[in-house]
Amino acid sequence: MRKPRLMTPGPAPVPEDVLLELARPVIHHRSAEAKQVIVDAIAGLKEVFQTANDVLIFTASGTGAAEAAIINTVPRGKKAIVLNAGVFAERWVKVCKPYGIEAVSLDTEWGQAVDPAQVESALKQHPDAVMVIGTLSETSTGTGHPVDAIGKIVARTAAVFMVDGISGVGAMECRTDAWGIDLLVVGSQKALMLPPGLSFVSVSPKAWAAIDACPTACFYFDMKLARKKMAEFDTPFTPAHTLILALTASLKRMKAEGIENIWARHKLMSEACQAGVTALGLELFSARPAEGLTVFRVPEGLKDSQIRNALFDRFGITTVGGQDRLKGKIVRIGHMGYMDELDVISGLAALEMVLADLGFTVKPGQAVTAAQQVLIGQRAKMPAG
Amino acid sequence: MRKPRLMTPGPAPVPEDVLLELARPVIHHRSAEAKQVIVDAIAGLKEVFQTANDVLIFTASGTGAAEAAIINTVPRGKKAIVLNAGVFAERWVKVCKPYGIEAVSLDTEWGQAVDPAQVESALKQHPDAVMVIGTLSETSTGTGHPVDAIGKIVARTAAVFMVDGISGVGAMECRTDAWGIDLLVVGSQKALMLPPGLSFVSVSPKAWAAIDACPTACFYFDMKLARKKMAEFDTPFTPAHTLILALTASLKRMKAEGIENIWARHKLMSEACQAGVTALGLELFSARPAEGLTVFRVPEGLKDSQIRNALFDRFGITTVGGQDRLKGKIVRIGHMGYMDELDVISGLAALEMVLADLGFTVKPGQAVTAAQQVLIGQRAKMPAG
Repeated sequence: MRKPRLMTPGPAPVPEDVLLELARPVIHHRSAEAKQVIVDAIAGLKEVFQTANDVLIFTASGTGAAEAAIINTVPRGKKAIVLNAGVFAERWVKVCKPYGIEAVSLDTEWGQAVDPAQVESALKQHPDAVMVIGTLSETSTGTGHPVDAIGKIVARTAAVFMVDGISGVGAMECRTDAWGIDLLVVGSQKALMLPPGLSFVSVSPKAWAAIDACPTACFYFDMKLARKKMAEFDTPFTPAHTLILALTASLKRMKAEGIENIWARHKLMSEACQAGVTALGLELFSARPAEGLTVFRVPEGLKDSQIRNALFDRFGITTVGGQDRLKGKIVRIGHMGYMDELDVISGLAALEMVLADLGFTVKPGQAVTAAQQVLIGQRAKMPAG
Repeated sequence: MRKPRLMTPGPAPVPEDVLLELARPVIHHRSAEAKQVIVDAIAGLKEVFQTANDVLIFTASGTGAAEAAIINTVPRGKKAIVLNAGVFAERWVKVCKPYGIEAVSLDTEWGQAVDPAQVESALKQHPDAVMVIGTLSETSTGTGHPVDAIGKIVARTAAVFMVDGISGVGAMECRTDAWGIDLLVVGSQKALMLPPGLSFVSVSPKAWAAIDACPTACFYFDMKLARKKMAEFDTPFTPAHTLILALTASLKRMKAEGIENIWARHKLMSEACQAGVTALGLELFSARPAEGLTVFRVPEGLKDSQIRNALFDRFGITTVGGQDRLKGKIVRIGHMGYMDELDVISGLAALEMVLADLGFTVKPGQAVTAAQQVLIGQRAKMPAG
């Protein structure tokens, strides 16, 4: 027997009852029933995003929604400052190119958090920047960035603050309106506990003003068109409404647990996983870990594939390695969405055994014990059943 | 009791076993298991599309894939001839605008089929056209266009022939390679018997040459990037792989039935539905009906909403009305994908009763009888169970 255990930082596990929603007969996307689904989905997303702003739904991966946010806001020939500290931030630099947007890449060492003071000086150096693009959780390095502090800085300027919250939202604190996030981009397959295929953008009045001033650069991702349709709880093109229906089920679970409790649960799982990993003598990669995943450096003498393959072959645990310049150097363990403390404990127990099998010096139980020490006495709520 | 009966020209019903595939636990999209799913999906799609060309998978509505095909092929400032005979063809004119592509709209009266001779003279008038955009089945009017004849004409020129097969492929004969279709665009939620959320583009060597010569105009829909990834049975961004997994199940059904039999079944359902509708004294809207739907004019003295609401309220049948300038003037009944002759008979029986209830002179059984007369003696294969 090999039970599948998806411990990747997206896609993340989907609750069984949400999966069953996907098996319901397809309905027409312009029926009254489908409109009610959109109404419910938008209300739930606003709660999770902590925003009163408009929320648009795209049938696309998170990258598509991020592209929409960028190219609808920044006109050809204008500037966007990208807070670049990993693979995903770098992707937003690449998005700018074909649209003739000048991307000012503010580079931070991978694994380090973006320094808000640097953002402040970059904005002074580029007062003509239309947009600042930040990341809540940079999944490629497992780093959480101080979006709250950066938001305050950007809010004092004319620039629109876009945040890639694709893997972060729902897995760590994110207060869209309180933090001054003008465009929050989120994916379905992470802490929202859905399969991939949908993405979302929340849009502040400040962002809408910039979008209205920006010549339309695309068709499928045209946010002005999407706003018009969303006012009637509709989408411009046939959406993946099977996924939207399932989304309402996962949002119902999230509402029952409460967003503050969800954040607390992820924080706790994250601290427990970090404690376990470091108790094994492994080194955390990130100086400021995100809360939906834990990333450690591959120890001397081992290959990442040895660890990852052994986790999969023996325990059915899927993890991911490093991307780009981090290929072979790190292992990334996801604990976001439909995950609880015992999933983390199981993962750590498996890691201990696998490392021991590979000849790495491990005292059985040390990671699990360290994690338990974090968890004992805590009262994080479990996902509603 | 009101059994749901989805008789819209997309989304169309999804077989029960395919729906259940959607409820399977999510797997990681870069695992060996996921790659095998892509291998199977591509092989099945090539069979359905009747092509040996590359096939790309996009997580997007059909509109997204069509936009990809257009903007990856036609450079800014260059020309595309759009064979414009309905709402969907008109959409491709609109796609061109933000990308600075000059759309030459070759207008045909709605409900009429495009005349290949006109395409020939347009190509002579615009020898610099990079692309000709045709439609297999224009869902807004229920018209099938002579894509085979048009393909032969375009093939003699330097222009790339793109066909919007979003609602047509699988519901009517389409031989991509034999007909000279360079870019075939298909959606998941029609005759492929899946929920919405995926779309596909097949790409001929002639199209690839044009794409390679065209400056990259986008990121998410970058086909050069998609080709690179598809060579490794991967996608550039996290795909809606729950849908791709379900796609392999629907493609397996299609393989078991055989594409020629599938076309024959749709042709038969289409002829039966047309016979039934005309037997009621209703007028078909299209001069050259497509085979995945039947469109009739709303009879004098009735409103389309009266007919459609009664079909839904009494029998759970969802149909659609007209769009744009056809709003209120037509009713569109879908019979594509997971549909058989008895579904058409049921739909016609319901239409008879509803029209009678609305005071329209109907002799009970006349539509059903006319349809049966078409069906008796025919041996169209049913979908494999």
